[in-house]
Amino acid sequence: MPINNRQIIYANTPSPAIDPSLTSGTFKLNTTTIPDNVPADKVLVRVHYLSLDPAMRQWLTAKRSYIAPVERGAVMRGQSIAQVIGVGDSVKSQYKVGDWVIAYSGWQEYALMSAKEAQKITVPPGCQPTDAMSVLGMTGLTAYFGMMEVGQPKPGDTVVVSGAAGATGMVAGQIAKIQGAKRVVGLAGSADKCEFLRKELGFDAAINYKDKDWKKQLKEATPEYIDVFFDNVGGEILDACLARAARDSRFAICGAISQYNAAKPQGPASFMNVISQRVMMKGFIVFDYAKKYPVALKDLGTWLSQGKLKRKDHIVTGGLESAPQGLVNLYAGVNTGKMMVEVAPMNKVIGRQAKL
Amino acid sequence: MPINNRQIIYANTPSPAIDPSLTSGTFKLNTTTIPDNVPADKVLVRVHYLSLDPAMRQWLTAKRSYIAPVERGAVMRGQSIAQVIGVGDSVKSQYKVGDWVIAYSGWQEYALMSAKEAQKITVPPGCQPTDAMSVLGMTGLTAYFGMMEVGQPKPGDTVVVSGAAGATGMVAGQIAKIQGAKRVVGLAGSADKCEFLRKELGFDAAINYKDKDWKKQLKEATPEYIDVFFDNVGGEILDACLARAARDSRFAICGAISQYNAAKPQGPASFMNVISQRVMMKGFIVFDYAKKYPVALKDLGTWLSQGKLKRKDHIVTGGLESAPQGLVNLYAGVNTGKMMVEVAPMNKVIGRQAKL
Repeated sequence: MPINNRQIIYANTPSPAIDPSLTSGTFKLNTTTIPDNVPADKVLVRVHYLSLDPAMRQWLTAKRSYIAPVERGAVMRGQSIAQVIGVGDSVKSQYKVGDWVIAYSGWQEYALMSAKEAQKITVPPGCQPTDAMSVLGMTGLTAYFGMMEVGQPKPGDTVVVSGAAGATGMVAGQIAKIQGAKRVVGLAGSADKCEFLRKELGFDAAINYKDKDWKKQLKEATPEYIDVFFDNVGGEILDACLARAARDSRFAICGAISQYNAAKPQGPASFMNVISQRVMMKGFIVFDYAKKYPVALKDLGTWLSQGKLKRKDHIVTGGLESAPQGLVNLYAGVNTGKMMVEVAPMNKVIGRQAKL
Repeated sequence: MPINNRQIIYANTPSPAIDPSLTSGTFKLNTTTIPDNVPADKVLVRVHYLSLDPAMRQWLTAKRSYIAPVERGAVMRGQSIAQVIGVGDSVKSQYKVGDWVIAYSGWQEYALMSAKEAQKITVPPGCQPTDAMSVLGMTGLTAYFGMMEVGQPKPGDTVVVSGAAGATGMVAGQIAKIQGAKRVVGLAGSADKCEFLRKELGFDAAINYKDKDWKKQLKEATPEYIDVFFDNVGGEILDACLARAARDSRFAICGAISQYNAAKPQGPASFMNVISQRVMMKGFIVFDYAKKYPVALKDLGTWLSQGKLKRKDHIVTGGLESAPQGLVNLYAGVNTGKMMVEVAPMNKVIGRQAKL
């Protein structure tokens, strides 16, 4: 019997902010059917958790970027944690019903996928399938390569992370500490997040950038200036950190979430310090380090099991149709940790939250 | 008999532009006397050519930088080409009257200097003492290290240089060509300069950034995007080049002359491309490479004598008191090549110009 499949379609270009309304906004709901006879080279998966990522806003803009934009009328692109519910004849050696996969399914409840698009997850002891989308997935890997390859913190260094309570930022700060940084300072958007960074994750200082005097606090928290800056935010925060750049510092430019919805992006006004302090700034994309994923995942898995690295997920429980509002909330910074949408529950998930 | 020595003193902070008036402006004239008995550990020099450098505006600002600011009331800081006219008893083995030196004399006609402050020049065949202040001096070395250490052009690369008709830019572009770059494109501020870059220096393209359609010209001149950008200018030009950055490009940030006099500096609005194209931007200061000067000077000297590297100086002939106006003109971009002020003439100097 064919399966009814609800999906979220990219309908209208944001102008410039995402409008979460499913009747008149950026996205709309659609229902299709999927035949229940699975083609020989495919697997049929049921989506459980959708990843919400800061980069998604960029995917909706038709500009030259690291990835082609999502086309209007197509299912919204995104990773998910999904479970195999049907296996085609020619891939039966690779999958069985019940396997967990990380899939480029997009925003829908079910998907027919090729073996390339649905990667089987091995869940290490003490871990859960959703980790493959956060600390042992793209966000953890992004933090890993941004720190280890670009920022390269050394013992004695002062390291600052923006968006520090986000999925990538919290891992980045913890890696800096593991690498022997002297001071790790996080910037986040609420007092609760800052307390979480200090008390739960062991950051040396955490600053709420919504405080009026946050720049003064940043100055006080970096008495020896900033050796490594891991930036997820851009804009005014990048500017303030550039003004505190130490000689020969490294700025790992991971994201610029403050600018993604901006009609007119701002560059860093303290750019002159790039010269006077010989700052090296480098943008990076996790995909460029694909050959090194196995080593990185081994390190991250070891640190996680040793308790040196702590995980935190923020799970939105309103079903598929919560995804657009969830994405808007991600840009508003409501989350602490990796944000994902629960499309279908799974047993024993650590960190489930109230609806949105 | 004591020597009358005229000097230019830093009098008033620019607000923000330099005011060249010697009665009410940034600088004022002063006359002192220097006793004619030279102290044992000093040399007395007569200054012939003062260097005018884009960095000078920064030296007048009391901000954290790579060098302490000039104090108000002090002789304006600067390099010069000078000739020894008196030698103290204990340094007679090092100097003789008539030697040419490159000196941190500041803006004055005569100076008593220690051996550290006045470095003897060896003038290679076909060269002249002033070369030690341009192509075989700080500007040539800046171009060399910015290209060889930061930009690292490879055969096949597209290289863009801003301020390309300036002392550093013209050497940078020529070095890129020597290193096998496929296309070298210069940005300069007049049609004459552009013609000079194409016809005299062999640039593949040169664009007058004062043309209305300069961004379109830049796009056409970089069909394969920009692999290396050597930036002397900053602001809107850096921004436009960032918008044309190729994947994994290197941006050597040497200067930002468009911003030095700006009350409110602008950062590059296309900063997002740093992420999407994985751009590496690095500020650098020539002094950091001091250990490698001998190798660099050997390369530069060889290229100069082989005719692969061409020199061009812009010599202001109005005497010491022309220096403030000369500096203002440097920021206005009147010069093609290294700008210097003739305080006292020297025989057979290539490239003397009309007064200012």
